[in-house]
Amino acid sequence: MDRKGVLVVISGFAGVGKGTLVKSLMEKYDNYALSVSMTTRAPRAGEQEGVSYFFVSREKFEQTIAEDGLIEYAEYVGNYYGTPKSYVEDQLSKGKDVILEIEIQGAHNIRKIYPDAVLIFVMPPSAEMLKERLTGRGTETAEVIKKRMDRAAQEATGIEDYDYIVVNDTVEQCTAKLREIIETAHCRPVMNEDFITAVRSELKAMAGEG
Amino acid sequence: MDRKGVLVVISGFAGVGKGTLVKSLMEKYDNYALSVSMTTRAPRAGEQEGVSYFFVSREKFEQTIAEDGLIEYAEYVGNYYGTPKSYVEDQLSKGKDVILEIEIQGAHNIRKIYPDAVLIFVMPPSAEMLKERLTGRGTETAEVIKKRMDRAAQEATGIEDYDYIVVNDTVEQCTAKLREIIETAHCRPVMNEDFITAVRSELKAMAGEG
Repeated sequence: MDRKGVLVVISGFAGVGKGTLVKSLMEKYDNYALSVSMTTRAPRAGEQEGVSYFFVSREKFEQTIAEDGLIEYAEYVGNYYGTPKSYVEDQLSKGKDVILEIEIQGAHNIRKIYPDAVLIFVMPPSAEMLKERLTGRGTETAEVIKKRMDRAAQEATGIEDYDYIVVNDTVEQCTAKLREIIETAHCRPVMNEDFITAVRSELKAMAGEG
Repeated sequence: MDRKGVLVVISGFAGVGKGTLVKSLMEKYDNYALSVSMTTRAPRAGEQEGVSYFFVSREKFEQTIAEDGLIEYAEYVGNYYGTPKSYVEDQLSKGKDVILEIEIQGAHNIRKIYPDAVLIFVMPPSAEMLKERLTGRGTETAEVIKKRMDRAAQEATGIEDYDYIVVNDTVEQCTAKLREIIETAHCRPVMNEDFITAVRSELKAMAGEG
């Protein structure tokens, strides 16, 4: 039977490895569509326009907001981040599971518009390991690392608003866990309304016959 | 880390193969505890006391109700069915996932007492296949089969109250699906409160240091 697409929100502290996990999911399985966010922040080394993000000016971003072209947006450490609407809706309507890698404020907004979205928070094995990963990445100044750790401490208050947490011990086990969670979301009655209705009608018809 | 036990409720129409699925889960994995129900109905051929059910008199059943010894009970086709409380709570406290195979009315009662229980409804691939299975079992009279099909038509109205549905195409794939759903339930924040609290405190302490 045709599967309905699930909207999957993946959040987590900066440095926890969300990007790597999402890349791993996309490589391993072919039924996912990755939503590319729009942002006003500057590209990091190696980031590609239209793959990592759509990099735009504040003016362009605010124009897109005005045109209702984003399903959510948020400001984070002085920059805008948002999710273009048309791609998400196209892919969901084709039965693809759409993966959004967004931060916690955006995730809350998604929940309001898409109540059936599955919200997953990626946790580090420990706070200490998060700090090590941020430091080891070597792309950020000490000041930015401090800012990100403070931000993580703030964001940690919202973890219970997510449906699931996964611990990023290794990319492989964590990818498998994400897969399991997404597959399970397809088993919700709301994703199988046509099938349930069909069986129900058939049963009713048979009960009538007896 | 220590896992908290999940209470898993498995329901489905009579004849859909719940018993076989539960048996398969118990054989394949060792972290499940199967709750044995108490009933006033007569044993079927091959059913064993204390394994299939605890078979008791109406008098004994009503005494157990009076002593608050059941977490739920319901009357179904003229017989009582109930879940003894002590076994479920013992096993959950040991970190076992406890499987309850109960009908739809009982499942509703469980939800009220254990809001974190996971409720799964086993569906037949079609209503026609359900009827074939009931007929093929050869243990029931035509009148009982008619009663069960009518009952199924009634029960089908409550499917959306379950968290998940699984389709019993083959025992193997359906067992794997059940496993996936139960493992996913362990990823809910409510099952990982100690871990979340620990990371949160650690982050807060680090943010304070900076």
